[in-house]
Amino acid sequence: MNKPKVVVLGAGYGGLITVTRLQKLVGVNEADITLVNKNDYHYETTWLHEASAGTLHHDKCRYQIKDVISSRVNFVQDTVTSIKPEEKKIVLEKGELDYDYLVVSLGSQPETFGIQGLKEYAFGITNINAARQLREHIELQFATYQTEENKQDDRLTIVVGGAGFTGIEFLGELSNRVPKLCREYDIDPKKVRIICVEAAPTALPGFDAELVEYAVSHLERKGVEFKIGTAIKECTEDGIVVAKDDVMEEIKAGTVVWAAGVRGNSVVEEAGFENMRGRVKVNPDLRAPGHNEVFIIGDCSLIINEEINRPYPPTAQIAMQQGETCAKNLASLIKGQGEMEGFKPDIKGTVASLGEDDAVGTVFGKKLVGTKASFMKKMIDNRALFMVGGPGMVMKKGKFKFF
Amino acid sequence: MNKPKVVVLGAGYGGLITVTRLQKLVGVNEADITLVNKNDYHYETTWLHEASAGTLHHDKCRYQIKDVISSRVNFVQDTVTSIKPEEKKIVLEKGELDYDYLVVSLGSQPETFGIQGLKEYAFGITNINAARQLREHIELQFATYQTEENKQDDRLTIVVGGAGFTGIEFLGELSNRVPKLCREYDIDPKKVRIICVEAAPTALPGFDAELVEYAVSHLERKGVEFKIGTAIKECTEDGIVVAKDDVMEEIKAGTVVWAAGVRGNSVVEEAGFENMRGRVKVNPDLRAPGHNEVFIIGDCSLIINEEINRPYPPTAQIAMQQGETCAKNLASLIKGQGEMEGFKPDIKGTVASLGEDDAVGTVFGKKLVGTKASFMKKMIDNRALFMVGGPGMVMKKGKFKFF
Repeated sequence: MNKPKVVVLGAGYGGLITVTRLQKLVGVNEADITLVNKNDYHYETTWLHEASAGTLHHDKCRYQIKDVISSRVNFVQDTVTSIKPEEKKIVLEKGELDYDYLVVSLGSQPETFGIQGLKEYAFGITNINAARQLREHIELQFATYQTEENKQDDRLTIVVGGAGFTGIEFLGELSNRVPKLCREYDIDPKKVRIICVEAAPTALPGFDAELVEYAVSHLERKGVEFKIGTAIKECTEDGIVVAKDDVMEEIKAGTVVWAAGVRGNSVVEEAGFENMRGRVKVNPDLRAPGHNEVFIIGDCSLIINEEINRPYPPTAQIAMQQGETCAKNLASLIKGQGEMEGFKPDIKGTVASLGEDDAVGTVFGKKLVGTKASFMKKMIDNRALFMVGGPGMVMKKGKFKFF
Repeated sequence: MNKPKVVVLGAGYGGLITVTRLQKLVGVNEADITLVNKNDYHYETTWLHEASAGTLHHDKCRYQIKDVISSRVNFVQDTVTSIKPEEKKIVLEKGELDYDYLVVSLGSQPETFGIQGLKEYAFGITNINAARQLREHIELQFATYQTEENKQDDRLTIVVGGAGFTGIEFLGELSNRVPKLCREYDIDPKKVRIICVEAAPTALPGFDAELVEYAVSHLERKGVEFKIGTAIKECTEDGIVVAKDDVMEEIKAGTVVWAAGVRGNSVVEEAGFENMRGRVKVNPDLRAPGHNEVFIIGDCSLIINEEINRPYPPTAQIAMQQGETCAKNLASLIKGQGEMEGFKPDIKGTVASLGEDDAVGTVFGKKLVGTKASFMKKMIDNRALFMVGGPGMVMKKGKFKFF
């Protein structure tokens, strides 16, 4: 008898939870488990704003996948180029894989809404490589400033596109980092501008108005200029062009960061699943409609919040909860039990950090700001480590500088 | 009675020794002393290869000028734009100064021999600002590599133009730094190339052949490729074009460093003193011919080594010795004693470092390599701190990691 082959694509929050749960739920003789990931490490996507600003070393934001998966799991380090659901086949850059059951947990990609120049000139907070590059790009701007005969103050302007979750968290770290960069490179802090451009009528959409107000004034006190209700029209080598109420303005900047939106993965889109910008509205058991052997979880899945009849924003919290359900349902299929669990997000809270010592958010329905919120944020970060890697991983990579 | 005004231009090795000696030799009532310098700090020019490679923090290579000069010295932070010897006047970017006695210790400038593109595209190891920029530029190349779809291995190629003293010392640090950068940015060290191009028929001209051989094979073992007897013809955005025996070759490189020569200061040239590429062949008492109130020391002065009838290469060692003589002769003029001391360099030795734990050189006529030479090099570096700032400065900025 052939053991079913389970292939999991992506070792983000969803994929890793699936594999670490599944390796316990099904025996070595019951299924082969293969995990495919581009890198040999997992990274904490929700911590990348820190690595990008240079306030936390990127090695603190990642760990080796082999440290958390069982030796029975076949790990393939490769990049997925396409999924062929009809043939039950995965095409990788360096090979192919067949599957009986597939878990697609490939994560998101930046959504640039067709804005010209963003892909070419803006930096993203998307992965470890991008985070390191952004950190070093900003540092080189500061390092170059004093070497120039004609000092270009614009070189020290950093534009952040998007005042959503990632944008705000990055601004919190950046405003802590800038004074240190100024000391390192003998630069008058008054020369530095940090500008946040947000097309929506408010920062942190979805957050309570009081918390938004707290976050914005906290960041303004630290020197961030907000341009709310202002859309980026174009990104160039020298900065951006924005528009508010049909008035155009050019903002010259040495660094433009795009943190204003993600979409599902193009691999999912091209695989032929019914999707919206790379996200598949999955069945309650997390399977793709019409594909009983394909689970889609994390940022490539779309789950409707029925209270407001709108999709939940993709988060690590949901991806990890999906990973648990996905592993249970897979085990059930493999064991032929047929019992499938319906997925329902259990939103414990959402906290946006504003730097290492401040944050805003709602936890178990209670609004929090300041050190309490910051403490909760670190607990949430440590919990993600714990869920995948247990207490050892929390000790190794956890955040313990609370006050 | 008017006190004579002494103005010292430049707080490098020569200028700072002059001021720190002069402030003791002449009383407050005997002369006004003004020191002009672009920055409010002095930097150790001979340590810049370390700051540039990123193996020593630039703050270890500099100290505040006010920490070593007496409060009686009038310190002016400004840039010298011209010297008008006929009017006994100095024009600064933000003002003017009159003098009765002038000490010109403005240091050197890079000599690019008219090679096209060097000024635009090559980095120099010339001051703190340039060192920090070079360090960060190299780091950004490594940080960018993994972010690119089509990886550009050339991005990781570093070309060093010149296998003289600075070039060799920089290569020593760089070859120690590269493995650390590879770990930081997940790069296979085999992808990195360090290429040294030298037009002369040997590396380290002026050094004993045995020491040259030691230095070159040490650096080759650490991965440096030498192209000796090869001239840089052009520097472009993408790298350099070299020629050896009329055969042209293009070398693509993410970083080009020019470390192949210095000249005197253009301010000296434009002031009308008789000069050779910004260097003035001074009288034995260090005064400029025909200008009895102007001393020129350091890299802007030219001292002939009569044993070989060629100029001494400009070094920190000579600049500091000149500062001592200059201060004595100035004091003698101010006090009206008329006794002038003739300057004669006392070359105690020359040691080129090959990284933190190796070096080659000659000290008191004895050839040294390895840890002994490295120890002597650090002693020489600490001595420069001691000469200007005393034991306190050695404790603060000294190099004590000997083995």
